[in-house]
Amino acid sequence: MTGLAAPVVREFDRMWADLHLVGRCPSGGYRRLAWTAEDACLREWFTGEAGRRGLDLTTDRAGNLWAWWGDPDAAAAAGDPGIVTGSHLDSVPGGGAYDGPLGVVSAFAALDELRAAGHRPARPVGVACFGDEEGARFGIACAGSRLLTGALDPGNALGLRDADGVSMGEAMSSAGHPVRYDGRQALRDDETLRRVGAFVELHIEQGRGLVHLGRPVAVGTSIWPHGRWRLELRGEANHAGTTPLADRRDPMLGLAAAILEARSAAQRLGCVATIGKVMVQPGGVNAIPSHVTAWLDARGPAPAAVTSVVEAVGAAAQTPAVPESFSAATVFDVDLADRLAATLDGAPRLATAAGHDAGVLAAAGIPTAMLFVRNPTGVSHAAEELAEHGDCLDGVDALARVLLDLTR
Amino acid sequence: MTGLAAPVVREFDRMWADLHLVGRCPSGGYRRLAWTAEDACLREWFTGEAGRRGLDLTTDRAGNLWAWWGDPDAAAAAGDPGIVTGSHLDSVPGGGAYDGPLGVVSAFAALDELRAAGHRPARPVGVACFGDEEGARFGIACAGSRLLTGALDPGNALGLRDADGVSMGEAMSSAGHPVRYDGRQALRDDETLRRVGAFVELHIEQGRGLVHLGRPVAVGTSIWPHGRWRLELRGEANHAGTTPLADRRDPMLGLAAAILEARSAAQRLGCVATIGKVMVQPGGVNAIPSHVTAWLDARGPAPAAVTSVVEAVGAAAQTPAVPESFSAATVFDVDLADRLAATLDGAPRLATAAGHDAGVLAAAGIPTAMLFVRNPTGVSHAAEELAEHGDCLDGVDALARVLLDLTR
Repeated sequence: MTGLAAPVVREFDRMWADLHLVGRCPSGGYRRLAWTAEDACLREWFTGEAGRRGLDLTTDRAGNLWAWWGDPDAAAAAGDPGIVTGSHLDSVPGGGAYDGPLGVVSAFAALDELRAAGHRPARPVGVACFGDEEGARFGIACAGSRLLTGALDPGNALGLRDADGVSMGEAMSSAGHPVRYDGRQALRDDETLRRVGAFVELHIEQGRGLVHLGRPVAVGTSIWPHGRWRLELRGEANHAGTTPLADRRDPMLGLAAAILEARSAAQRLGCVATIGKVMVQPGGVNAIPSHVTAWLDARGPAPAAVTSVVEAVGAAAQTPAVPESFSAATVFDVDLADRLAATLDGAPRLATAAGHDAGVLAAAGIPTAMLFVRNPTGVSHAAEELAEHGDCLDGVDALARVLLDLTR
Repeated sequence: MTGLAAPVVREFDRMWADLHLVGRCPSGGYRRLAWTAEDACLREWFTGEAGRRGLDLTTDRAGNLWAWWGDPDAAAAAGDPGIVTGSHLDSVPGGGAYDGPLGVVSAFAALDELRAAGHRPARPVGVACFGDEEGARFGIACAGSRLLTGALDPGNALGLRDADGVSMGEAMSSAGHPVRYDGRQALRDDETLRRVGAFVELHIEQGRGLVHLGRPVAVGTSIWPHGRWRLELRGEANHAGTTPLADRRDPMLGLAAAILEARSAAQRLGCVATIGKVMVQPGGVNAIPSHVTAWLDARGPAPAAVTSVVEAVGAAAQTPAVPESFSAATVFDVDLADRLAATLDGAPRLATAAGHDAGVLAAAGIPTAMLFVRNPTGVSHAAEELAEHGDCLDGVDALARVLLDLTR
């Protein structure tokens, strides 16, 4: 089916084999949280892949990795900056193999394919690996790209703490990426951003749209407005046996109300809403909790609908939902999407309710596009996530054709 | 108020000062889970207190500590076994200072008072420190006393795992108490049990009964039927953004139903019911959970009422509640309670909804009684738990008079 050269396919398979066991859980899913030992292993792998190909590796101020074929600074100075592809390598706890890594592995493979075909790009080609895309450790999705573009205030972000009390700043330092942040300016890294003329992120589809269309690859058109909110439910710790019901201030009742309202408000308003992370203090079987923290993920076709869901959940829980992150609707660059679709012989177009680093770069004014690869199970953020080998190769082929077109 | 000798009071205060910082949390509460470093420190303290007083220290097969004044084996052989007092030193996460330690510190102080008064006991006096009373780490309350009496099957219990995956058996071994269990018999330790002619446990009241009565000390009469159940709520992990509501199998909805039904069934049936511990897998903000485990604590005036509450919660959650432990109603030894009340000039009598090692020993046929000390806040299992210094000394005085009476 695909026109990829045999050595490119072998190299593609070899990269997957290298990644296969990093952070693998007994469940078959992956646990690759940002700035952990698993993440360090993945970043080292990225560095090694860049080295194998003679690419120039740089790390930006927010700790994202970039591997360049060609001189991006010279190209930027000449007014013709590079074309970047890539994605992320971190995962949610128990996540699938493809969400993130498919975009990075395919980026290297597409670059291999261009070289195998003897292509000499007219502009530099970059492969990016964004840090902490999932936000599973500190609660902020796309933290790496948001710090890069200045969309995230480092004064708040670097102080966020994981479940063990380690701050993002400490975690980055321990991982060998101390952040030089003097408290006065954003971490926005203009030196890095000006190298990026356009960004194309390949990603596994997180749904069954391509299954229904009977196609292996689609062009992404937009990302739904989406965000995360935190509910702080306060109660009073007491003995589960000796405290009369009337004297209790049990924050679990507010949690129950929030869970039920998240579902029914989302239904009412055509959105999706999820409470997937909860911390109960002190967490003893025989103790009425003193405090429950719950996180709400809400997404919808329009910002107003999302806001209504969040307000309804806060009202049900009798505590205001504190925003942790919010992304308004992202419509990718229309000209770039048209060009991709034309290059790919009329590939279908799909919107998504999932956030991506591509959305963050698009919001920062960089012409951005996405490619989605078919996911037969439609499952995402779980071990059952799947992309067939042939579809993956079609994805590499599509990405290579897009890069060829953009660097002719 | 109290007739305690001044050196006894000084020693009492010194013991509290020694314990003050062990496992203390920033919240002001204590985290003293069984078989942890904090627990080891507390057990070392107990050993030291026994040594200061020239008591003979023994550890039973289940890892409970016993400090004896006099020869319990000779007394048992003579058909006149010892009188034991004491309690536990472990806590729930964020628990108060008195739940457990008040009974142990008061035991040593009462023994000091007897000696200060020149008393020569006719039977040995023992001070017991039961391991893992709260069950906060492995989910089984009174694990130490239950293993001792054979009420708990070690084949199940030793394999229970804490949140970090460490089993009870491993934790006990690491703490220097490897369990000699060959898989065929219970851990019931008859050599230890036959030394115990009667057990009197002093404990802080977990409620405001004595506040309402205007009295510092009461005699315990009974313990409500109570138990713990586990709910395993199964769902399907998926992406919080891209999975349509109709395609979701979100176990958090079952959790919400369980929380609400626990409250309303308890109200309906005159019981108390609490869900205070929850584990959400995988626990990502943007992941629909695959699995939620919730623990239900339920107590009531009669076993049938408790069973009805538990069944209602299981029905609401659409999963059967798995029993982890259950204690039927415990009525303490009536003769012993009468004798205590008479010795204490008509101290009031109180029932409790909290489980205690005293209840486990009573169920094993040992004549058992309890003394409760006033708790002005009524709070239990939280930092606000309180006993006034004067009430604590009244408790020591009461315990000393009871021991004197029982060992004349």
